[in-house]
Amino acid sequence: MTPLGSGPCPMSTGDRDGEPPAHDGPLVAEGRTLSAYLDACRGLVLEEIHRLVPVDGEQTGGLYRLMLEYPLRAAKALRPALCIATCRALGGALRAVLPSAAVLELYHNAFLIHDDVEDGSEKRRREETLHRSHGVPIAVNVGDGMLALGLTPLLENTELLGLGRALRILREIARMVRETAEGQMMELDWVRRGHWSPSDRAYLRMVYKKTAWYSFVTPVTVGAIAAGADQATIRAFARFAGLLGIAFQIQDDVLNLAGREETYGKEINGDLWEGKHTLILARALRNADLGDVVAARTILAKRRPGPETPSGPDAKTPADVRFLRDLIDRGRGVEDAWAIGRRHARRAARTLAEVAGGLPSSVHREFLSGLSEFVVRRDH
Amino acid sequence: MTPLGSGPCPMSTGDRDGEPPAHDGPLVAEGRTLSAYLDACRGLVLEEIHRLVPVDGEQTGGLYRLMLEYPLRAAKALRPALCIATCRALGGALRAVLPSAAVLELYHNAFLIHDDVEDGSEKRRREETLHRSHGVPIAVNVGDGMLALGLTPLLENTELLGLGRALRILREIARMVRETAEGQMMELDWVRRGHWSPSDRAYLRMVYKKTAWYSFVTPVTVGAIAAGADQATIRAFARFAGLLGIAFQIQDDVLNLAGREETYGKEINGDLWEGKHTLILARALRNADLGDVVAARTILAKRRPGPETPSGPDAKTPADVRFLRDLIDRGRGVEDAWAIGRRHARRAARTLAEVAGGLPSSVHREFLSGLSEFVVRRDH
Repeated sequence: MTPLGSGPCPMSTGDRDGEPPAHDGPLVAEGRTLSAYLDACRGLVLEEIHRLVPVDGEQTGGLYRLMLEYPLRAAKALRPALCIATCRALGGALRAVLPSAAVLELYHNAFLIHDDVEDGSEKRRREETLHRSHGVPIAVNVGDGMLALGLTPLLENTELLGLGRALRILREIARMVRETAEGQMMELDWVRRGHWSPSDRAYLRMVYKKTAWYSFVTPVTVGAIAAGADQATIRAFARFAGLLGIAFQIQDDVLNLAGREETYGKEINGDLWEGKHTLILARALRNADLGDVVAARTILAKRRPGPETPSGPDAKTPADVRFLRDLIDRGRGVEDAWAIGRRHARRAARTLAEVAGGLPSSVHREFLSGLSEFVVRRDH
Repeated sequence: MTPLGSGPCPMSTGDRDGEPPAHDGPLVAEGRTLSAYLDACRGLVLEEIHRLVPVDGEQTGGLYRLMLEYPLRAAKALRPALCIATCRALGGALRAVLPSAAVLELYHNAFLIHDDVEDGSEKRRREETLHRSHGVPIAVNVGDGMLALGLTPLLENTELLGLGRALRILREIARMVRETAEGQMMELDWVRRGHWSPSDRAYLRMVYKKTAWYSFVTPVTVGAIAAGADQATIRAFARFAGLLGIAFQIQDDVLNLAGREETYGKEINGDLWEGKHTLILARALRNADLGDVVAARTILAKRRPGPETPSGPDAKTPADVRFLRDLIDRGRGVEDAWAIGRRHARRAARTLAEVAGGLPSSVHREFLSGLSEFVVRRDH
């Protein structure tokens, strides 16, 4: 067996493209339609998740109630919506795709639980992270249980979709978890090696594997398989999704620095506190004076202060984070990153137009084509 | 969907059975044969795991090398041996079962990585735990990646074993992860509620789900499915495995208190430091004076001191652990537990004799029947 990710990663690393981010403005009318579509899908998916997750018994210690915690918190549920929209736009039935879409949302939430443990995050969707309120052991275990629970509907797909499609979906899910683990490991490896300024190319590859794959490529691919699309169509949709995913991540990094906490829902500058790799930080470091680079690396090697160990020589201080923030603000890092995200979103739109232009007009197709714009304009 | 574990759990909770543990004596000749069988299986399985785990590339950050860390450390590899022996004893071919057996070993090691994070353990198989040497983020991620990687050979089973058997094995694996998560959660729920003296019945149910299921029931069931056994045979083998698994866990708890560190490989009294639920501890608390119970509960509510935070009012001290140990030693807790383990092992042997007595004599059948004795006599 060989490692994954030797395939092409759709990316463009150029600069200077368009005006600064409009994330403070109201969402456009298109955004309201998108929100309505997302809400409708989320309702369907939560119903399906409730069907899927058992009610706790005497011998489950409250395991299943905890599995519902994150999914029930306010969230966009973008992944299942992408999956459903792709299937429906291609003429597939809702019932053919709903169980798989619910599994994607369940897996996403399982990853969030494990990610929060890995990053030592305090808040998730405006509330305490699961490991903060229930401890690391329970959080890790709940995540593992969710990954296992998701296998059942995927196996039941054999009856719903026939053997061929069911097995292809299972393979996609297995690949998804591996791509994500590889992307995660790429970043963790940079952290332990103190490698803070990867090239744009390396950064985009990492994001493609770590985020775009499981949030965009897999949902769209699974939706297309459930609809019975041919191989060329599946591949084109996956290309669209990869570009969109990269745009999405870059915009997320921009919002973390330049968003408003009320609408964004996460802590502003949280990525700097956590020492997260972003295109913006990498570019700021590549363009900084040697003295600033040394100071920044010293700061980035420190941990985020935790509630139990709020300070110490190995913990970042507010002044440290301000230093990093100044370093970024001195250049055009935020604007440039936003422009790169925008370029990816535009390429995504073009790719989708080529493959979906001939499909019958539908709210599902409109949702997909509206997304490229949404991803760049969103403020949450 | 309903929670699992409503099925029967084979257990006997009586007392007084036989002489004290012989774990300090040399292993019997039978044990040597078992070791040889285990070693042979382990060799085959490691080869298969090497085939299964990719070599790291530029975009994997060392993920796959870390997946091999635990499997390559000295270990019995009991689970794949159980799986192979069951399949072969029932007339199945080695190649029909080897990929699934390797997946079981891979999953076992993934669970060990996550368990070590959950328990804050320092050593695993005489070396540093993965999260101690590489940090919690990498450890959690490597475990997740291993769980994903295991899906590939299970999906390839469709070609090797045909669709029906491949899907049944996949279902067994999904159930295994759920049963384990439920059992784990039962115990974690006891910890957070400060419930230290569950009934024998509740304790045995927890162990059945948390340990026996994935270490014994699933390997044997998967082996029987790979061999093409009928439903009644599969069920009987699973019953044998459940009894054996409970015996195994009880013996593990006995060795943790009464074994020798050199042969046992883990820290003596480690379960007390970690505040692990055992039949022995539960019984000691049920039989203790109220004053001792209060003192013990106060100690058990404390955390294990870590290398970074070696002491503090919330950390156990050596005197604390000695207190718990004295409480246990004052009763017949260790001897009684050993006797209960022995009773389960004998029932396992009878169950196996009923279902496997008519099978052709083979080294595989001998391995399975020798195991019940081995489990009770083992000192490592």
